[in-house]
Amino acid sequence: MKLIRFGEKGQEKPGIQNSEGKNLDCSSFGEDWNETFLTHNGLERLKVWLQANQSKLPEIPANSRLASPIARPSKIICVGLNYRKHAAEAGMAVPEVPILFMKATSSLSGPDDPIFIPRNSKKTDWEVELAVVIGKRAKYVSVENAMDHVAGYCLHNDVSERDFQLNHGGQWVKGKSADNFAPLGPFLATKEEIPDPHQLRLWLKLNGKILQDSSTSDLIFDIPTIVSHISQYMTLLPGDVISTGTPAGVGMGLKPEPKYLEHGDVVELGIEGLGISRQVAINDPEA
Amino acid sequence: MKLIRFGEKGQEKPGIQNSEGKNLDCSSFGEDWNETFLTHNGLERLKVWLQANQSKLPEIPANSRLASPIARPSKIICVGLNYRKHAAEAGMAVPEVPILFMKATSSLSGPDDPIFIPRNSKKTDWEVELAVVIGKRAKYVSVENAMDHVAGYCLHNDVSERDFQLNHGGQWVKGKSADNFAPLGPFLATKEEIPDPHQLRLWLKLNGKILQDSSTSDLIFDIPTIVSHISQYMTLLPGDVISTGTPAGVGMGLKPEPKYLEHGDVVELGIEGLGISRQVAINDPEA
Repeated sequence: MKLIRFGEKGQEKPGIQNSEGKNLDCSSFGEDWNETFLTHNGLERLKVWLQANQSKLPEIPANSRLASPIARPSKIICVGLNYRKHAAEAGMAVPEVPILFMKATSSLSGPDDPIFIPRNSKKTDWEVELAVVIGKRAKYVSVENAMDHVAGYCLHNDVSERDFQLNHGGQWVKGKSADNFAPLGPFLATKEEIPDPHQLRLWLKLNGKILQDSSTSDLIFDIPTIVSHISQYMTLLPGDVISTGTPAGVGMGLKPEPKYLEHGDVVELGIEGLGISRQVAINDPEA
Repeated sequence: MKLIRFGEKGQEKPGIQNSEGKNLDCSSFGEDWNETFLTHNGLERLKVWLQANQSKLPEIPANSRLASPIARPSKIICVGLNYRKHAAEAGMAVPEVPILFMKATSSLSGPDDPIFIPRNSKKTDWEVELAVVIGKRAKYVSVENAMDHVAGYCLHNDVSERDFQLNHGGQWVKGKSADNFAPLGPFLATKEEIPDPHQLRLWLKLNGKILQDSSTSDLIFDIPTIVSHISQYMTLLPGDVISTGTPAGVGMGLKPEPKYLEHGDVVELGIEGLGISRQVAINDPEA
């Protein structure tokens, strides 16, 4: 299944994308795609419900806003420097264990929402990433059992303010957490849609020019390793989002000069099997 | 007002502590103390409701478990090294701006719940801290206006695994996020209960011996500065918890030898006007 959410911010409704690529309204299922839904075996229940009801579902209204395909989770955990060439362009060593950091969940946004360039930002940057959504509570899980705890996958842009991240005192979270710094979607593809998540092309274009183009086969730490590793340190809850790291080609690493987002820039990104998203960078209207 | 929550994990009910120190059941108010409650002017509504109903409220059952006085927030943000002597004992420089890091919200626990020593932990440590609870959305707020966004204050033990925090690759979040690493409460004191949050004694005892004993007057960055600073980087939502840092006397800094929690150790801590909490450290039963 491919789960979507749509509608205005704060009033999102659940839906699915069918095999023809049509977005269908699942409001009549009566639940949002969130922690509670996943905790109570929602994916299985939805699958059964769709067998009986899918043909009757209305298409979502034309020009509907797509939202994050899952409702605000308990946490968004990111893995840093998980592609060798990106570690090199960032001037950092290849890590021996997964480096973890958090994004504030208030940064979550829809796949085609604008990126807000924060007040005083000079270095707002992009990062195409494969995100994993947890389906079942995970604590001290082994690498072997880790995939049992995964619900599926999403496209994610781990938007990052490099000056805030690296030069404003200490921990990376300061540069990762502004509003709309986590465009997620267009859809959550459940596990069975993606036979091998470690063989997917991922790419990102800025104003039509391709800047990131790699494959999840280049991940230093694979998905089972990451899920198992995180679960040794904290309990993963259903709906939690894990973003697995970005390949080379971020603005910070461009030669001869770094490049960062400016008002009006257009970012498009995609992962094979996980769709495409498109964000226009704009100066934060609240700034 | 002093807000409490009580009852078994996952089935918590709201209450208050009255001026005589009695804990009263506010289930009949019909709301939990959470983001939605605070967003919709809950503190004012509760105050009015209590004027009419307080005398009829039942005391909570004897031996009830106290829970975190607010329901799981969108985020728990901590300030690092915010007391000079603690920065010195940690061997780190006094910061020029507030250092921020996150705790997973899944670490939240009641004030007298056990501390779970995680699997493979050798260095589980304590940190008495004054926590601030946000009452109103805060984004790009000034220092002058910051206190308008504060709902009140709680006692917090920012439990920390030093080896996970400092030696397991990168960011501090790994050592801050295990289950029950954030005992909060016993109550949330609303702002008017604490005329000056920067003149409060705070202390912590391990097995009856006092190890931390300081005052919030020694904070390097005060509460308005912290709230304003964080709000430049991310949006604070009602219910969000900000922990303002710990004074000297953590296990990592003890002379001649550091000391860490062992199964059976008893931690008691308190802040003037914010009550006392007590945790027994035990090996995580899931480990």
